[in-house]
Amino acid sequence: MNFENRDIISILELKKEEIEFILEKSAYIEDLVNKKEDISFLKGKILANLFYEPSTRTRLSFESAMKKLGGETIGFSKADTSSVAKGETLADTVRTVEKYADVIVLRHTKEGAAKLAAEYSNAPVINAGDGAGQHPTQTLLDLYTIKKEKGRIDNLVITIVGDLHYGRTVHSLTHALSKYSCKINLVSPKDLRLPQEVLNDIKDTNSEVYEYENLNECISETDVLYITRIQKERFVSDLEYNKVKGSYVINKTILESVKSDMIILHPLPRVDEISCEVDETKHAKYFDQTYNGLIVRMALLSLLLGAI
Amino acid sequence: MNFENRDIISILELKKEEIEFILEKSAYIEDLVNKKEDISFLKGKILANLFYEPSTRTRLSFESAMKKLGGETIGFSKADTSSVAKGETLADTVRTVEKYADVIVLRHTKEGAAKLAAEYSNAPVINAGDGAGQHPTQTLLDLYTIKKEKGRIDNLVITIVGDLHYGRTVHSLTHALSKYSCKINLVSPKDLRLPQEVLNDIKDTNSEVYEYENLNECISETDVLYITRIQKERFVSDLEYNKVKGSYVINKTILESVKSDMIILHPLPRVDEISCEVDETKHAKYFDQTYNGLIVRMALLSLLLGAI
Amino acid sequence: MNFENRDIISILELKKEEIEFILEKSAYIEDLVNKKEDISFLKGKILANLFYEPSTRTRLSFESAMKKLGGETIGFSKADTSSVAKGETLADTVRTVEKYADVIVLRHTKEGAAKLAAEYSNAPVINAGDGAGQHPTQTLLDLYTIKKEKGRIDNLVITIVGDLHYGRTVHSLTHALSKYSCKINLVSPKDLRLPQEVLNDIKDTNSEVYEYENLNECISETDVLYITRIQKERFVSDLEYNKVKGSYVINKTILESVKSDMIILHPLPRVDEISCEVDETKHAKYFDQTYNGLIVRMALLSLLLGAI
Repeated sequence: MNFENRDIISILELKKEEIEFILEKSAYIEDLVNKKEDISFLKGKILANLFYEPSTRTRLSFESAMKKLGGETIGFSKADTSSVAKGETLADTVRTVEKYADVIVLRHTKEGAAKLAAEYSNAPVINAGDGAGQHPTQTLLDLYTIKKEKGRIDNLVITIVGDLHYGRTVHSLTHALSKYSCKINLVSPKDLRLPQEVLNDIKDTNSEVYEYENLNECISETDVLYITRIQKERFVSDLEYNKVKGSYVINKTILESVKSDMIILHPLPRVDEISCEVDETKHAKYFDQTYNGLIVRMALLSLLLGAI
Repeated sequence: MNFENRDIISILELKKEEIEFILEKSAYIEDLVNKKEDISFLKGKILANLFYEPSTRTRLSFESAMKKLGGETIGFSKADTSSVAKGETLADTVRTVEKYADVIVLRHTKEGAAKLAAEYSNAPVINAGDGAGQHPTQTLLDLYTIKKEKGRIDNLVITIVGDLHYGRTVHSLTHALSKYSCKINLVSPKDLRLPQEVLNDIKDTNSEVYEYENLNECISETDVLYITRIQKERFVSDLEYNKVKGSYVINKTILESVKSDMIILHPLPRVDEISCEVDETKHAKYFDQTYNGLIVRMALLSLLLGAI
Repeated sequence: MNFENRDIISILELKKEEIEFILEKSAYIEDLVNKKEDISFLKGKILANLFYEPSTRTRLSFESAMKKLGGETIGFSKADTSSVAKGETLADTVRTVEKYADVIVLRHTKEGAAKLAAEYSNAPVINAGDGAGQHPTQTLLDLYTIKKEKGRIDNLVITIVGDLHYGRTVHSLTHALSKYSCKINLVSPKDLRLPQEVLNDIKDTNSEVYEYENLNECISETDVLYITRIQKERFVSDLEYNKVKGSYVINKTILESVKSDMIILHPLPRVDEISCEVDETKHAKYFDQTYNGLIVRMALLSLLLGAI
């Protein structure tokens, strides 16, 4: 399997074998890191971080991944310090930046931006989130965390909670899980259910899907609890926001009825969906996820640049 | 010829032989890059990018140039994240930053800023644009592109189009071309003609200069068509802006009457001075220019830091 | 003495021997730099600069220090490009970033932020200023400059001038000096005297402390003159600000009555507390301080990361 020079735009474009291949390579990289081996595979290579929308976590994760591999980064962390202010199109910015860099990481406000960038760039493009669209490396790190913690992805009960309507993380994750044989529980307020088209996409697959409004109905059978933030900016009014805000807060009381080896994931940043008291429990794996994200991005960069 | 530790403030300070020397060294660097030779000449060296005004292209180009040469960069990409907010003078900022860096690249809103910085810095200073003033590396990359594409700069018909009054790129380029023996056609609306003092400077040189309002009058004899943006911010009103905005748009219809080997350059970013349909023609060289800019800056940094 | 993995939150936590140890290691690093020895001790290591408040000098100093040692940096230079905008707590940001980096440098608007960060981070945390709180590396570079210039810190007359009430630099410096045997003169307007609690802390130590309103009363005996800015933002009104603004401006006239080997320090940025005419005198050491800051930070990073 060869990933050299390939664009990573959407998790939908990756076959199950390809996902598995990336996860294997991630485990390989993590092993090298643990053994403190020389991993400067990408010496002399440059990554361009084009972040038209701020994101500490994703931007720093890619920067750290590239630098740990001996490479370098350039870029910007919000649009207004760029030529955008002078009216340049994304296509032109990309055709410029690809001259300076070996790989481009793009975060953009508009869905489809990464696909367009990939059309204009000779350097491979990684989508780091395009509006309500895709964020494939988030999904890969979610899957890597599940596999690392549970030893497999198949035959698990995975419960996804929160704003399932707008959360791009959730759409990508459910799509990816549908390539495996899991039981997927979707827990959300009525108004924030998974969009019908995403639901249709995953219905005719190996995975079973169930919808709930109340987390209590499925918490006890859950192996992986995936919590997401209900973003305030998605609501038309403060009133609407406050109505559901507290619906799905994970605290120690809730943890009394879970499997002893259940793990909790969250794409972060969290606001108050998970109480701080949960952080120190054995269930909490959401900060490990950020480390796993670093590893997965290291593997992916090494693959796209033909280094492993 | 020795460029070690020299400031690059204005193209006017460079003799023709010096310009030629830089272009030769640029070709040498491009050759090394093509042959994938080890070019980590600047290992352990640090470049400080002081951008008091945002500029994706120029900032990232210098960062990439430095990093491709094995060096490192520090800096800021707009003034308000700096001590400026606390009322520090440019002289004091420079006297601080020169302690941290081996070379300083300065983009500033005020004409003369780079000259002042050079007076206070022991490290060499490269002017990356000071208000309506100079931007010498842009001119060097323009010249490098012309020489690379046409084999020479002498004896060419070079037509410069757009806002010739305010565009610093144009002033520097016409000054540089006047050191060669070219025919320079200046095409602009009456109100945006080249300033009289620039015109006077270049009149008593080896180059001939002609002024036109209509591009059709000189397009067919042109070897190099240099298009510039008419910056909205230069106009007192939207009305004035809209009057000339579309005057000099390059499209496929215009290209029907040009020499088959005519090349089109543009300092970028473009807005709509060049239609997208032109991008795929053999005439379009404006995206190659950005690559050439990287090469020229690599050569210049290597020269100033005594590495080649 | 072992500094590996230790947090540097406040100068108060460092014993005199520890301070002396850091100053010795700084001299060692400066010697290596002067001899152009290979100092890439920190190859493969990553420093995260988390600047919730802008600061050119400190941020670039740490970046340059890390890069001169062969390491790399990631980070942000103001809060709004970070997850903060999405409501993430500092604790969560730190628990994320420590996965990406080997050492964290934090500048924050709130006192106590660095201490909190250190509690949540496995990577060592360096406080680069937390509101009105501490800024220990500034104090270390002040001490290093005094020792380098005067050969000792004990038995000197050190006169500190300006806003002694709000200036965190001054509080840290007086605390540190109280561990030595100096004569400390504090010169300030009545309303901007050193806070009583700081004064109490240092009264029962080896150092003597005197307070003045007029610099003339103690200038002639002074060995080290430490000038600080009177920050406009500390005043309730422009009127209050203008009343004291010009009280303690150092100019050539004042220098007529000083010891011939008196040195002038300033944490910078200065506004107009020191006239430019002073810059070229032998007394002026404030720009050397910025270089010394680089050296001290190089030493400290090498110590915390176990490299020397």
